[in-house]
Amino acid sequence: MPNSSSSDATDRAVLLIDCPDQKGLVARVSGLLYAQGANILHADQHQDHELGLFFMRVEWSLEGEDSEASLAAFTDAFTPLAAKLEMRWQLRRMHQRPRIAIFCSQYLHCIADLLYRANAGELACEVAVIVSNHRAVEPLAAFYNIPFEYIPVTPATRGEAEAQQLALLRSRGIELVVLARYMQILTENFVAEYPTAIINVHHSFLPAFIGARPYHAAHARGVKLIGATSHYVTTVLDDGPIIEQDVARISHRDQVEDLIARGRDLERVVLSRAVRWHLEHRILCYGNKTVVFD
Amino acid sequence: MPNSSSSDATDRAVLLIDCPDQKGLVARVSGLLYAQGANILHADQHQDHELGLFFMRVEWSLEGEDSEASLAAFTDAFTPLAAKLEMRWQLRRMHQRPRIAIFCSQYLHCIADLLYRANAGELACEVAVIVSNHRAVEPLAAFYNIPFEYIPVTPATRGEAEAQQLALLRSRGIELVVLARYMQILTENFVAEYPTAIINVHHSFLPAFIGARPYHAAHARGVKLIGATSHYVTTVLDDGPIIEQDVARISHRDQVEDLIARGRDLERVVLSRAVRWHLEHRILCYGNKTVVFD
Amino acid sequence: MPNSSSSDATDRAVLLIDCPDQKGLVARVSGLLYAQGANILHADQHQDHELGLFFMRVEWSLEGEDSEASLAAFTDAFTPLAAKLEMRWQLRRMHQRPRIAIFCSQYLHCIADLLYRANAGELACEVAVIVSNHRAVEPLAAFYNIPFEYIPVTPATRGEAEAQQLALLRSRGIELVVLARYMQILTENFVAEYPTAIINVHHSFLPAFIGARPYHAAHARGVKLIGATSHYVTTVLDDGPIIEQDVARISHRDQVEDLIARGRDLERVVLSRAVRWHLEHRILCYGNKTVVFD
Amino acid sequence: MPNSSSSDATDRAVLLIDCPDQKGLVARVSGLLYAQGANILHADQHQDHELGLFFMRVEWSLEGEDSEASLAAFTDAFTPLAAKLEMRWQLRRMHQRPRIAIFCSQYLHCIADLLYRANAGELACEVAVIVSNHRAVEPLAAFYNIPFEYIPVTPATRGEAEAQQLALLRSRGIELVVLARYMQILTENFVAEYPTAIINVHHSFLPAFIGARPYHAAHARGVKLIGATSHYVTTVLDDGPIIEQDVARISHRDQVEDLIARGRDLERVVLSRAVRWHLEHRILCYGNKTVVFD
Repeated sequence: MPNSSSSDATDRAVLLIDCPDQKGLVARVSGLLYAQGANILHADQHQDHELGLFFMRVEWSLEGEDSEASLAAFTDAFTPLAAKLEMRWQLRRMHQRPRIAIFCSQYLHCIADLLYRANAGELACEVAVIVSNHRAVEPLAAFYNIPFEYIPVTPATRGEAEAQQLALLRSRGIELVVLARYMQILTENFVAEYPTAIINVHHSFLPAFIGARPYHAAHARGVKLIGATSHYVTTVLDDGPIIEQDVARISHRDQVEDLIARGRDLERVVLSRAVRWHLEHRILCYGNKTVVFD
Repeated sequence: MPNSSSSDATDRAVLLIDCPDQKGLVARVSGLLYAQGANILHADQHQDHELGLFFMRVEWSLEGEDSEASLAAFTDAFTPLAAKLEMRWQLRRMHQRPRIAIFCSQYLHCIADLLYRANAGELACEVAVIVSNHRAVEPLAAFYNIPFEYIPVTPATRGEAEAQQLALLRSRGIELVVLARYMQILTENFVAEYPTAIINVHHSFLPAFIGARPYHAAHARGVKLIGATSHYVTTVLDDGPIIEQDVARISHRDQVEDLIARGRDLERVVLSRAVRWHLEHRILCYGNKTVVFD
Repeated sequence: MPNSSSSDATDRAVLLIDCPDQKGLVARVSGLLYAQGANILHADQHQDHELGLFFMRVEWSLEGEDSEASLAAFTDAFTPLAAKLEMRWQLRRMHQRPRIAIFCSQYLHCIADLLYRANAGELACEVAVIVSNHRAVEPLAAFYNIPFEYIPVTPATRGEAEAQQLALLRSRGIELVVLARYMQILTENFVAEYPTAIINVHHSFLPAFIGARPYHAAHARGVKLIGATSHYVTTVLDDGPIIEQDVARISHRDQVEDLIARGRDLERVVLSRAVRWHLEHRILCYGNKTVVFD
Repeated sequence: MPNSSSSDATDRAVLLIDCPDQKGLVARVSGLLYAQGANILHADQHQDHELGLFFMRVEWSLEGEDSEASLAAFTDAFTPLAAKLEMRWQLRRMHQRPRIAIFCSQYLHCIADLLYRANAGELACEVAVIVSNHRAVEPLAAFYNIPFEYIPVTPATRGEAEAQQLALLRSRGIELVVLARYMQILTENFVAEYPTAIINVHHSFLPAFIGARPYHAAHARGVKLIGATSHYVTTVLDDGPIIEQDVARISHRDQVEDLIARGRDLERVVLSRAVRWHLEHRILCYGNKTVVFD
């Protein structure tokens, strides 16, 4: 299917900052941008008073300019200031669409949704490869003209399979891995290569119902709402920084299969939001939590 | 404040049934009611196919009749059928407003809401007594003309305090105990006296964040939604059958105190719904779950 | 893509009834089913006391039987009772999957979602044809192996185009028409052929923002929630019986394009629910309203 | 009942700005605050790119200072800048709790909720007077020790009644009027005296169901969600800038009285949020819309 996305005419820069809080941070950053003549489109900041941390996201237009030169000039001016203020920072251009890999297993509702959205231009990325331990996704990959890699995984071959996956990700220049109901647990080794760059969807309202078969557990507990959670993957199962959660009301009439069906819609929504926000450089992690700038 | 509730002109009967499922249950119950000339207002049933259980709630009008005689006739006809079909059942009249006790501690948002609603006629009950280990609720009790019993509790005096509470509940003919943010844990002995007749509100989305300080735990985990849960009290802490749950969206901007403030509104809502549904005889417990007929 | 839906092993019958309310309706219908030995899976009824109407939906298993004979026997027994009680009724078999047509224009999010769900077995139907006044949907139709008919419409050719559409629907035995963001208004003539059998999605919370460009109108009014509505089509624009509605929170930060993007997810959800409920024979229309049995 | 609110130990200043958008606004305001040594707690800004407008809210701590002198110094420095940049602005101290008047009629759920919250410290205001054309609220007013003024209104006496109300508001130094289900329509004359300082709750999801008896209208239309809206009052009925909206799901089972009961909870929530946000100086109006800083 032909890609129907349209990139905006004008590129934008996004600066993401986190650093120890102190007076004057907004003034200094915005002052520097003003001095550079930047046309700010959105700016947002957050202070965690408890931990004494400051977070900022600024987005400005690169219209009518030599954007490379303009960003280089900003970087030159900003780098010493950032060092002095102990800032961690990233500077991104919205037109540089990150290359992502989507992993899935036999359930296709999440990946089908992501592929539709990426193709429709709702996700600012290039889906560079689809990886699965099942062949179910192959027709979808073909439809969207995305390379598909079938990598079976068994407990015995996990190490080998992950080595193959990592080699693939490196060779394709992947910046973000999305686990779209990928039913294999990644090893610490794999996770360490993509810190805050692997997004998973868990089919419960975390931290309730960690682990396998959460809808069965929810049904057994008799909850009145079910949920889904998207989060960055860390080495602790279902424990990484939460990006988004949503819930749906259920009743005593709903059996496990109804929960699974209702849950699919939740999973699609929380995963696609998390991916979109990540790609729009709206998320900062600190400790085990996220700041999501809106 | 003068009680502003108005009872409906016409009384109604409510029959609640649960039994092993088999063919013809609806036909037999509705056939019997039809034979008695009952004017059914609402009827609802539920089958748990997994466990082979059947649940039914029927509500009919007692208009223009000698309702005592009418109910006695129904009971005479229904009792042998119920025995044959191994039914557990309750027959209630809506005009018989149950006498309830509300327990609270220093936080008054839940009890203030319940008292307002009871007074406004939203809850079909008589609030017969308020019990607290704090004096904070005393002015509210006075305003609504409800007897207030101050019963302090310490670890050393818990047994004695509960004995005093139970004596009070018995002497006032209490059928339902509502724990409106009552911050003491009840002993097994107390709970055993009121099976599925003690309703508690827990300030989290159970089973997440069981136990003390759930908003602190939710903040530490970085969840994106907070919740509250009303449930029947069993001898296992925060583990009884869930009646109602609700959630509210939060963000990284919300500190613990914001969660506590947002949560108050959730607690009010889930507790008052649970109490109302219980009083309208809409809830059946089975295993550790509830059927809530709407 | 190969159809991944699996039909249940056992067929089920669904009886939908509406009639003037009177005593004994549940008793008579359930008594008759009991006499026939039906294994009822779900039963639900509703009374509109204001209008004196009764609605009922019963679903029973056709397991281990000659289901044709069994249904014929039920029909023979039920027909005279239904006539006597002035019932309008439909008897359906769940394995008889209705043939549906989906109409769309250039926006594909709704139809892509419906096709995914139909293919995944979430919708109990056969998508027999896709009709559009644009060619954008053609690759999707090809992917799912569904006949596609391109029928352009202009004000001048509307009559002709509708004649062509109606001929097509008749020849394919279509029972339900789904307007998945089909941007043409159907004439009274067309609507009259499919009473309560055309489902549309309107991209607002009806009755707010009837007509064209509802997201623009919502933005201009400064609402804090946007909505979407699925409804049966009648001859009055955006005025037919509402089947489902949902809303999403927005803020002053959201521009019209954000509302459109957020709204797409709402439209998908309310349309797919409406179609599913219709196909599961859960909906009864009366006056300009719907009963949706859950 | 004794007021249980506790004011924070430290006062805070809030600056609200709106002006034509141009480059450098954040830099200039934050630079000036930095120069003054302000310890910024929260800062948020918004740009309406369509209209070319800029909005900003900054909140800083007045800790350990002579806050009067500090604010005076800021004002001296800010005033010329604001004039140059064509800013409209307000500077508030959080410890200066605005004096508000609450108007109600016979339905007390909204005012009871507001009084509870004000007393509990959830609303940063002083409820200086309660005005009603009914006597139903008198016991509540007495309980909370708030002056109550009974001012009956008939079509014939409306002018006189409003004159009496306005005199009262002036004499008590009222800055905000809250219409808590006050069932009289205010004249243009009254509204003109309190521009963006009268908050009303309308019991529908505006702009649906403007005017009288919206729950009856919602029931007649067969909607699947009902709503409530809080908004500033303008001279056009139910048309002022919307501050907050919320909805609740209903079904075909709900009669008008159920909608009214469900709606009460929505009304309480949307009105109390609007009042709280106004009192925390989070709202800016422009055109017929609001910016609500969170």
